[in-house]
Amino acid sequence: MKNILVLGAGQSTPYLITYLLEQAEENDWFVTVADRDEELATERVDDHSRGSSSFFEVNDLMLRATLMRKADLVVNLLPAQFQPLIAEDCVEHQAHMVSASYRDERVRSLDHDAHRAGVLLLSETGLDPGIDIMSAMEIIHGIRAKGGYVESFVSYGSGVPAPEVDVNPLRYCITWNPRNVVMSAEHGAQYLVDGKVKIVPWHNVFQRSWPVDVDGVGAMEAYPNRDSLSYLKVFHLERCQTMIRGTLRYPGWSETWAQIVRLGLPNEHLRIPNLAQRSWAEIVEMFLPRATSGSRLEGRIANFLGISATGRIMENLRWLGLFSEEPAGIQGETAADAMIHLLRQKLALPANGRDMVAIVHEIVAHYPDDYDRREKVISTFKHFGMPGGVTAMAKTVGLPAAIAAKLIMRNELPLTGSHIPTHELVYGPILRELASEGMEFEERSVPVEKSVVPT
Amino acid sequence: MKNILVLGAGQSTPYLITYLLEQAEENDWFVTVADRDEELATERVDDHSRGSSSFFEVNDLMLRATLMRKADLVVNLLPAQFQPLIAEDCVEHQAHMVSASYRDERVRSLDHDAHRAGVLLLSETGLDPGIDIMSAMEIIHGIRAKGGYVESFVSYGSGVPAPEVDVNPLRYCITWNPRNVVMSAEHGAQYLVDGKVKIVPWHNVFQRSWPVDVDGVGAMEAYPNRDSLSYLKVFHLERCQTMIRGTLRYPGWSETWAQIVRLGLPNEHLRIPNLAQRSWAEIVEMFLPRATSGSRLEGRIANFLGISATGRIMENLRWLGLFSEEPAGIQGETAADAMIHLLRQKLALPANGRDMVAIVHEIVAHYPDDYDRREKVISTFKHFGMPGGVTAMAKTVGLPAAIAAKLIMRNELPLTGSHIPTHELVYGPILRELASEGMEFEERSVPVEKSVVPT
Repeated sequence: MKNILVLGAGQSTPYLITYLLEQAEENDWFVTVADRDEELATERVDDHSRGSSSFFEVNDLMLRATLMRKADLVVNLLPAQFQPLIAEDCVEHQAHMVSASYRDERVRSLDHDAHRAGVLLLSETGLDPGIDIMSAMEIIHGIRAKGGYVESFVSYGSGVPAPEVDVNPLRYCITWNPRNVVMSAEHGAQYLVDGKVKIVPWHNVFQRSWPVDVDGVGAMEAYPNRDSLSYLKVFHLERCQTMIRGTLRYPGWSETWAQIVRLGLPNEHLRIPNLAQRSWAEIVEMFLPRATSGSRLEGRIANFLGISATGRIMENLRWLGLFSEEPAGIQGETAADAMIHLLRQKLALPANGRDMVAIVHEIVAHYPDDYDRREKVISTFKHFGMPGGVTAMAKTVGLPAAIAAKLIMRNELPLTGSHIPTHELVYGPILRELASEGMEFEERSVPVEKSVVPT
Repeated sequence: MKNILVLGAGQSTPYLITYLLEQAEENDWFVTVADRDEELATERVDDHSRGSSSFFEVNDLMLRATLMRKADLVVNLLPAQFQPLIAEDCVEHQAHMVSASYRDERVRSLDHDAHRAGVLLLSETGLDPGIDIMSAMEIIHGIRAKGGYVESFVSYGSGVPAPEVDVNPLRYCITWNPRNVVMSAEHGAQYLVDGKVKIVPWHNVFQRSWPVDVDGVGAMEAYPNRDSLSYLKVFHLERCQTMIRGTLRYPGWSETWAQIVRLGLPNEHLRIPNLAQRSWAEIVEMFLPRATSGSRLEGRIANFLGISATGRIMENLRWLGLFSEEPAGIQGETAADAMIHLLRQKLALPANGRDMVAIVHEIVAHYPDDYDRREKVISTFKHFGMPGGVTAMAKTVGLPAAIAAKLIMRNELPLTGSHIPTHELVYGPILRELASEGMEFEERSVPVEKSVVPT
């Protein structure tokens, strides 16, 4: 029997865990699900004869070692900051690793050690990063096979409510860890336009948005997503002149979140005394200079930020509850904790609503030997959740990781080292199984014109 | 023989290393200095019979364990991010630790483990944090002994060129790791004024400056230094209504650095391709949106930032070389690396110049049982470097740490756990030895009026 250890039992994991448990009997696997919230882990396993649950605390060295020692493969769904730690453990205990998180420099640098230990560390195998990278890689390999190269690569990813769901003024819901929204873009973003590198610090990222029209959805907006330049190397796009990864929202999110960042609310480092007893009005007041005191909080906020006191942004901030004078009952210590608490309450998906994930690639290829032909392809992936059931996010994050885990456990993925799914060996079978589940890209050629890109 | 391991042989260490080597014979110590730059470590030891040097690489687990295993005490002068790692090692290998860095949450949480292991982890034992905390604690204990309590605590620290040194338009020099200047305030700052918490995000910290008049120096400016609120607990100042720690500069630094932060240059996360071949004009251009292209770089920068194209700030940015079209020969990968490279070149202390460190406390005490008397004390510490010799920074950072190391090695510091120097047992003997070296605070009472504080 082979042992699979799933670390993390949060909102993105139910589909993945069910998939692994359903295939456990025929493959002779045993699946252990471990989480800080042991009850949640137990719920996910649901008394399956091939599964068990465990308490897990990442800082408990003894417990971690005990669990890791008996694992043949670890599905690592812990937050980003713990990725290197678990990857190192996997090398030490000779377990393979599959993860849906971005691969950071430390996990990348374990390549050599992973080879020596004979293990595969496979990161970025979820939705975004994950399906976006695999599908892009397939398109790029196709262009190369036809003798072409990529001149311009613009790619978008998103998880939002389905277009018909009238959820809230921000038209946004979160069905995963809100920390990823609260701290998004914290390290800024960079991209390439017409051969020029552009870098945007965090406090400007959400003001650098641009419009995107998505097939079957309509008008959306995008803001630049992290370090697009790193994918020039990953995809071997040395001659590419435009390289942008963007995150999609319905129009209006970015202008509102931009002001929350300018105010300084997403701060995980400064601990605010007595946070649990404070109201949101009190917390927000802390982010205003003293010199503005006197008049009404809302007016002073608008004035400090230089935005209309009666406009849409202020309306959104008010709807979020930032001016409420009730004690907010926040758990945690920082303003970021307070924002996480708030978004979890205000941006939950309604019980009868469904979410949508979308990936859009806009790729311009140049074929120098084919009469200098240029071709622009728009490739669109959309998937919808089941109202009251599995969310599109849980399914599209979980399924690629689950398939990868299956392939590795069946010895059908003969790779070692630190990887993201750019090998045909990896993305080929995963994309095929996704397609068999109805998760496919729709591709169309459009007239070759430049994509709309950020200013 | 007892073994002292000094980790780090950078610019702040020569005084400390010499001090320990000079006392090694009579105390039967052996001092090992370890650094990534082994030559530098060798130079510091200077063939002393009681010392040796070693190569050190923090990520080499084997080498680290080998060095730590034989140490009785580690003087940990590594950058902030490695403090928890070394502190954990010290607990594991039962070595005491002395450090001049801020104690973070992870080092604080080792308190229990350190007690069990019978070791003392002593952080914040340099200049700032260090001498400032020790001297403040002594004043506060004095007020308490007289039946009073602290109503208002404002404290400043700084390392700058001596007032008479005409160094550069920014009136600033760096004689330590420039990374600490480039990334300063990266997590924002918070403080307390008249009972109100104020929080400032990084992109606004340097615009929240205020004027400070320093005895014997004249007009300076201050910006808020990290999390002042955490010291309410450290100093047990539960009734204090104003609590501000500030960093001093000569006027003009903050308005210039504020624009560098707004532009986004201090970024350690985004790796810029081919950085070594780029000019500063090229790098700075990356931080401007495309829409501003066309006219001259300098004019577009001024326009983007909304500052005068012919004013003092632009003059400073030009003097720094940010618009130079020469390849800059930068080592490293990020814009922060580029800034570190630049500041090391442009803000070096001239060979014939001397630096100055200053600490100023402005403390208002209330004595309810003494006819409700209030007293305001200004306590000022200044120390000057030797032109061409030891800098004031190296001496005032190194001496407190060296004295602490000596006390621990002589069993004169009967403490275990994770500490900063707030115990009389620690600060008493250190402040006495500093005084015997002529490093004393000058104290004067002034009329009780509110301190000038940030808006």
